[in-house]
Amino acid sequence: MASIDVPVALLGYGTVGAAVNRLLVESADDIERATGHRLRVVKALVRDIEKHRSFPAPEGVLTTDFASVVEDDSIAVVAEVMGGVEPAGAYVSELLSRGKSVVSANKQLVARRGAELFAAASGAGVQLRFEASVCAAIPVIKVLRESLIVTNVHRVLGIVNGTTNFILTEMESGSSYGEALAEAQRRGFAEADPTDDVNGADAAAKMAILATVAFHSRVELADVAYAGIEAISELDIKAARDLEMVVRLVGSASLIDGQVDVRVHPAFVDRHHPLASVEGAFNAVMLQGDAIREITLEGPGAGGIETASAVVADMVSVIGTMGTGFLQNDPCWRTLGKLPPGDLQCPFYFRLHVGDRPGVLAQVAETLARHALSVARIVQHGNGEDAHLHVVTHEGASGAMQAALAEIAALPETKAPPVALPVISERGVEERQWA
Amino acid sequence: MASIDVPVALLGYGTVGAAVNRLLVESADDIERATGHRLRVVKALVRDIEKHRSFPAPEGVLTTDFASVVEDDSIAVVAEVMGGVEPAGAYVSELLSRGKSVVSANKQLVARRGAELFAAASGAGVQLRFEASVCAAIPVIKVLRESLIVTNVHRVLGIVNGTTNFILTEMESGSSYGEALAEAQRRGFAEADPTDDVNGADAAAKMAILATVAFHSRVELADVAYAGIEAISELDIKAARDLEMVVRLVGSASLIDGQVDVRVHPAFVDRHHPLASVEGAFNAVMLQGDAIREITLEGPGAGGIETASAVVADMVSVIGTMGTGFLQNDPCWRTLGKLPPGDLQCPFYFRLHVGDRPGVLAQVAETLARHALSVARIVQHGNGEDAHLHVVTHEGASGAMQAALAEIAALPETKAPPVALPVISERGVEERQWA
Repeated sequence: MASIDVPVALLGYGTVGAAVNRLLVESADDIERATGHRLRVVKALVRDIEKHRSFPAPEGVLTTDFASVVEDDSIAVVAEVMGGVEPAGAYVSELLSRGKSVVSANKQLVARRGAELFAAASGAGVQLRFEASVCAAIPVIKVLRESLIVTNVHRVLGIVNGTTNFILTEMESGSSYGEALAEAQRRGFAEADPTDDVNGADAAAKMAILATVAFHSRVELADVAYAGIEAISELDIKAARDLEMVVRLVGSASLIDGQVDVRVHPAFVDRHHPLASVEGAFNAVMLQGDAIREITLEGPGAGGIETASAVVADMVSVIGTMGTGFLQNDPCWRTLGKLPPGDLQCPFYFRLHVGDRPGVLAQVAETLARHALSVARIVQHGNGEDAHLHVVTHEGASGAMQAALAEIAALPETKAPPVALPVISERGVEERQWA
Repeated sequence: MASIDVPVALLGYGTVGAAVNRLLVESADDIERATGHRLRVVKALVRDIEKHRSFPAPEGVLTTDFASVVEDDSIAVVAEVMGGVEPAGAYVSELLSRGKSVVSANKQLVARRGAELFAAASGAGVQLRFEASVCAAIPVIKVLRESLIVTNVHRVLGIVNGTTNFILTEMESGSSYGEALAEAQRRGFAEADPTDDVNGADAAAKMAILATVAFHSRVELADVAYAGIEAISELDIKAARDLEMVVRLVGSASLIDGQVDVRVHPAFVDRHHPLASVEGAFNAVMLQGDAIREITLEGPGAGGIETASAVVADMVSVIGTMGTGFLQNDPCWRTLGKLPPGDLQCPFYFRLHVGDRPGVLAQVAETLARHALSVARIVQHGNGEDAHLHVVTHEGASGAMQAALAEIAALPETKAPPVALPVISERGVEERQWA
């Protein structure tokens, strides 16, 4: 097949942008063999042309002038790898409306302005792809949009933040939270200011994107309730281990009776569940649907070259599907309601620090029963004035659990307000062989 | 976007064929929303039109006449879901040469005649897709061909046979091999004649396909050395557990210095490795490459509706990429040599039943050292005339291991010839904390 020359452009030429150019140059033959096309970066928008680059662009490619990109009719596809919501958003919006397909690696942009940009792309008959915006090289967006078209995906469970997963697995090996965070920073898995990672905000943005694509309905960042791992202690890690579980920061997106629920929270994950074996800075996403039961994709969720490889794959996919309009339609074509937050059902774990007077356990069980929460297991450690009850419930509504915990917190024997963590188990807690 | 009507045909209308038609009918709106196309089955080739069907085809669709499919110019894509090497192979070949794209769910056909069919498709400027031929709905072929184009995949590790994985995980729960096989048959995970599953032949066919696609070089079924799980005993399962590992039937395809090695064998898998957590009848494939480190895809590797969903996704992908020739090129464009079988390097486990006379352990260690195999750990259980040595080596050549084991088998103290199993560990055995 004759080779077709395809001029492309980049917005941004930092770590990811330079890596995209390097992959396009070094893998040009591979791409041509697979697709019959040779992609060539002809423009790259930067702020400072003189800055040192890890993989320098050829003479004349770097430009500070956005107009020279948008007005170059030879450019078929533009990769936005500059980051930030603005001016990236304005640039992408203009490119789409001017008939140029765009590939974006920008999580914040897609999470905040995705719906508007999807509609702009669809209206102009071009594509917006964004694989690299979620979990880097793990091809979860492509699998959702192209492989699982007919499977009615109704649940997405993900470990989508590598920093917190690294910290939690370090804690399993005996580190304290502080030690684990310091080690993550030392290895480059955590920023100097790790706030957005450890508090769940980063994971929330990714879950908003995944839920939007999976359920075809806009999920805003503000729709995602999230909690982080800052309060997870060695006690939680040990309690999980005693139950043959592990603690993970889990993003969960559910489509239930036409209503959507998306949240991020630390959870107890059964050690036989596919998400339990995700260790270190890796990410994994489990997609549950009618026809496929469940498919789990696991891999590195960050990294310059990993992100660049996803950007290149998206560029190639745009080029390869331009003729017949595949995926030019808006992935977000309906508006679903939100599930009332208290209605989501799952099993729970909580721990109770109590003075062990006769009848405490009975009172706790009675309170749970009054809120339609049935107990799968209670274990008491210690006794006298310093006892800990570990409680795992069967599936129940999270609103009922909050109400029950508020009452339990008010019991005179309760020494600290208990916090419930969801339990994630493939087989349901009732089928577990408790250790 | 205006909807485009796309007539399609099926070869075969059994469990998978009927499920494909059902998905196309029931998910027609989803497909149209995503792609702008409505796929409609207009012909389905069967042997017996009168036979009862789980999801009946409309009047006039079923036909016993292949010519009526191949000569219908309105049909853009044909899904081969009839199985068997012939006449399926002749039909697919003719369809491709007549300019029709084909989607095949046929593992035996693609494993045996893939190279010839890929070339026919490429020559005619049409596509042959075959996602459903390997691991049903797990989209490993699409990910390899479209997402990992620039990542130089150099290793594929897979649990690609659900029957054997079910049996091995049942054995972990205390069943004997015979009990586990009977349970697999009772649940429909194993055929009445399970030979091709338990002896590794089914996994070998899948690994031949995966290696061909990953390395772009023809791997024939005959190139894949395979061993099954028939000889795995409770002793192996227990020995693995004592080492914090599990036994799995693993397919391994490696590209080493331009040479290819593909094999299927039972292996000891470190319990922290992503493949160790694959339980029951599930499948998983790990793809290791330069830019992505590793990506693992896990899910159900069989099932009528799962297979049908992969067939439909492939049909939609063909339709969506017809305009610009994406993936119309031959995925198998080079001919790589085979790695000499003894050259593959990995750590090994073996167990030795010996009379415990002084010096046996030293003799074993000395024999290994002479073959450049260094010991990571030796544990002795029992003593006197009935001792078992459990040995884990560091990485070494499999040929050297065979030679060393032959010498060890000839020692007068050795009571039964030892068998070495490869050890699969992400971090190398030297980094494991041995229990």
